[in-house]
Amino acid sequence: MYRKTALLFIQCWFIPTVLFAQNGILVFQSDFGVKDGAVSAMKGVALGVSPQLKLVDLTHEIPAFNIWEASYRLLQTAPYYPKGTVFVSVCDPGVGTERKSVVLLTRSGHYFVTPDNGTLTLISEKLGIQEVREIDEAINRRRNSNESYTFHGRDVYAYTGARLAAKVITYAQVGKKLPPAVVKIPYQKPTFEKGVLRGMIPVLDVQYGNIWTNISKEFFAQLGVKTGESVQVRFYRKDEKMFDGRMVLVNTFGESKEGDNVAYFNSLMDFSVAVNMGNFSEKYKVNSGPDWRVEVSR
Amino acid sequence: MYRKTALLFIQCWFIPTVLFAQNGILVFQSDFGVKDGAVSAMKGVALGVSPQLKLVDLTHEIPAFNIWEASYRLLQTAPYYPKGTVFVSVCDPGVGTERKSVVLLTRSGHYFVTPDNGTLTLISEKLGIQEVREIDEAINRRRNSNESYTFHGRDVYAYTGARLAAKVITYAQVGKKLPPAVVKIPYQKPTFEKGVLRGMIPVLDVQYGNIWTNISKEFFAQLGVKTGESVQVRFYRKDEKMFDGRMVLVNTFGESKEGDNVAYFNSLMDFSVAVNMGNFSEKYKVNSGPDWRVEVSR
Amino acid sequence: MYRKTALLFIQCWFIPTVLFAQNGILVFQSDFGVKDGAVSAMKGVALGVSPQLKLVDLTHEIPAFNIWEASYRLLQTAPYYPKGTVFVSVCDPGVGTERKSVVLLTRSGHYFVTPDNGTLTLISEKLGIQEVREIDEAINRRRNSNESYTFHGRDVYAYTGARLAAKVITYAQVGKKLPPAVVKIPYQKPTFEKGVLRGMIPVLDVQYGNIWTNISKEFFAQLGVKTGESVQVRFYRKDEKMFDGRMVLVNTFGESKEGDNVAYFNSLMDFSVAVNMGNFSEKYKVNSGPDWRVEVSR
Repeated sequence: MYRKTALLFIQCWFIPTVLFAQNGILVFQSDFGVKDGAVSAMKGVALGVSPQLKLVDLTHEIPAFNIWEASYRLLQTAPYYPKGTVFVSVCDPGVGTERKSVVLLTRSGHYFVTPDNGTLTLISEKLGIQEVREIDEAINRRRNSNESYTFHGRDVYAYTGARLAAKVITYAQVGKKLPPAVVKIPYQKPTFEKGVLRGMIPVLDVQYGNIWTNISKEFFAQLGVKTGESVQVRFYRKDEKMFDGRMVLVNTFGESKEGDNVAYFNSLMDFSVAVNMGNFSEKYKVNSGPDWRVEVSR
Repeated sequence: MYRKTALLFIQCWFIPTVLFAQNGILVFQSDFGVKDGAVSAMKGVALGVSPQLKLVDLTHEIPAFNIWEASYRLLQTAPYYPKGTVFVSVCDPGVGTERKSVVLLTRSGHYFVTPDNGTLTLISEKLGIQEVREIDEAINRRRNSNESYTFHGRDVYAYTGARLAAKVITYAQVGKKLPPAVVKIPYQKPTFEKGVLRGMIPVLDVQYGNIWTNISKEFFAQLGVKTGESVQVRFYRKDEKMFDGRMVLVNTFGESKEGDNVAYFNSLMDFSVAVNMGNFSEKYKVNSGPDWRVEVSR
Repeated sequence: MYRKTALLFIQCWFIPTVLFAQNGILVFQSDFGVKDGAVSAMKGVALGVSPQLKLVDLTHEIPAFNIWEASYRLLQTAPYYPKGTVFVSVCDPGVGTERKSVVLLTRSGHYFVTPDNGTLTLISEKLGIQEVREIDEAINRRRNSNESYTFHGRDVYAYTGARLAAKVITYAQVGKKLPPAVVKIPYQKPTFEKGVLRGMIPVLDVQYGNIWTNISKEFFAQLGVKTGESVQVRFYRKDEKMFDGRMVLVNTFGESKEGDNVAYFNSLMDFSVAVNMGNFSEKYKVNSGPDWRVEVSR
């Protein structure tokens, strides 16, 4: 009995510590681009905290001020990193306004250092909120940086992320605990009604011009369409129909001919549309974001 | 006598192991671009295999589906990396079709993890084929990834490359040995006939718009032209002549005036053409690929 | 007395060694872009010197041959890296001409490996010159690279930077000591006369199209304008006035409305101008470089 209690105590106290222990990997995302020195200055600050850190880039090509896309890129990548990885995301159109600077710890054991401006919308839904803390800038701000109002990315986010990843500070030392919630961007969730699947286009597969939707393979299954069968796909910008066509659902592009429109499930297993060896987005002027919707039927 | 045999045995068995031992360096190439999270997801998978790996990018700006250029970039860089480096190259227009997933070990001791679709054309000629193995996806595929048909890059190539580089698996554990050959893209080799050198334009020096040919300095020597002398250069797209002009062969751009057309040997010691401080490709509409040929004469 | 002298001796001899000890971090800058393999070949050479090196990119998107911008990017980032970091900067329009290949050690303990062609203009003023040495290519050049005239970046600069960063060579072993001076690009320094601040536009904040000047916050103070007050700003290309307008000086963009022109101090605490959530450079056709000047008055 005594031993059982002791064991229980050890579990409660010890397991989370191990589960959520930082692993020294620090991943950067921003809308800074890499043409100037802003990203490199963040890395210099991080290596000044500890030269042992493993620095990795997610992307710095988030379109300027596009918080939705910043949110989506975290969703696309963070689950593939080991537990204990620290992500720093700086897409911060409201820098200097009332938005809070936070560190989210997800149930999966990943850390996200960012302005709480909607960047955490999708990752908080996917990985779950374990705890949210507000960055205490009295402690977690690079020394001699008080004057700089415009570069929180370097002096607060990169600095705090690096100190957390390198275990210079514990998660508790980030700052005071907030209620377990983050600012969310509203977006249309998938629906299925009268034989029609509806959803949105969260993002393009930009390199190839493929269209990705937020309709998961699992949700899509309600339509009862199998690979090799065809579906009717419509894309709308607000209420204007921009594309309306039939295409085959394939497992791999190799099953279709060059130039064919095809439907498939992307690497996140979401319903997607492409031109085989071509660029669907350019060809049909279909884009992504809150204004863009999709309908799929038999 | 006994000792001599033993030594021989040790040499045969031991030296290749040392020569080809993986060194923990993992180099990535793809046509994914860096605007989305695809490259970063591959790195997350790799660091999940081992946070000790040294991750380096070759380039992710291979033009979409351009296997020839993927092949050329490996040629341009791999020889400069230490023996035991593992390269992962994902330019895979035939994903999901019959092309094999392989790991090539070259005689120089470098490893190349890639679809066998022509990507290995040039590096196999340059560094020599030691052994080719087919990736056994029953073993070398990320767990819980069975559903994803479209992202072999992350779940098979990055995962296998990381496990090989981190010595989680041996080269033999990649999968079964194949005949020592790879799929090759046909291309025109250099010729010299009746005082005319002929060759092709494998690639541009894209940043500066310089034209690189596949005529090596050694091969060029047959023309008997020395630096300081001038040559006649013609570029053709298929059979159409696109440029015809004389220019001086220089050791360094500093020997010519701004705006001059110059011939030189590039960092790979191949015959090349440039506008000093300008962009030859844009100025004269000359490009690269199998359709583009060059002729050089006195 | 004796002990004091001894201590002094130890200080003189010992402290600089510690202060300037290389830390294994190697930062690359170039105008090579990342579409081909040139940057990756440099990293291969560096990892061949020592796989323990920490490789970081500053940027490889310096506009081709733009030495001024190379100089500015070093200024923007180097001070944020720990002492002992080695920077390799290759923007080298005069490759093969008389320009010297040097390694600058600054008073701050940072190393800069580069052609001495003006690249060191701003960093030498900011961090101070401790010592300048010329690279002795008889020693500090990659073996078997003698033939290649056009790729000093890889065979001399990356190679020497890697050997210095990895402590394979000492700073003294770089080559012979030169007079403590570097080649400088002339540029207009800020002035204040009859109520008018004058300066130049060294660089744009390219990702957002913001205009950065070389008028520091400290120098700006002479105008006696406080945040919340407005200033008159004029931009000139040579003698042609390109913009003339009033705008408020803000601490953060959050204090202004979307679309407003605003004045602020950037992350380097220099006077800057932006369109809130827009692109000033594109909107008003204002650019950067030696031809562009700014005037600010009450």
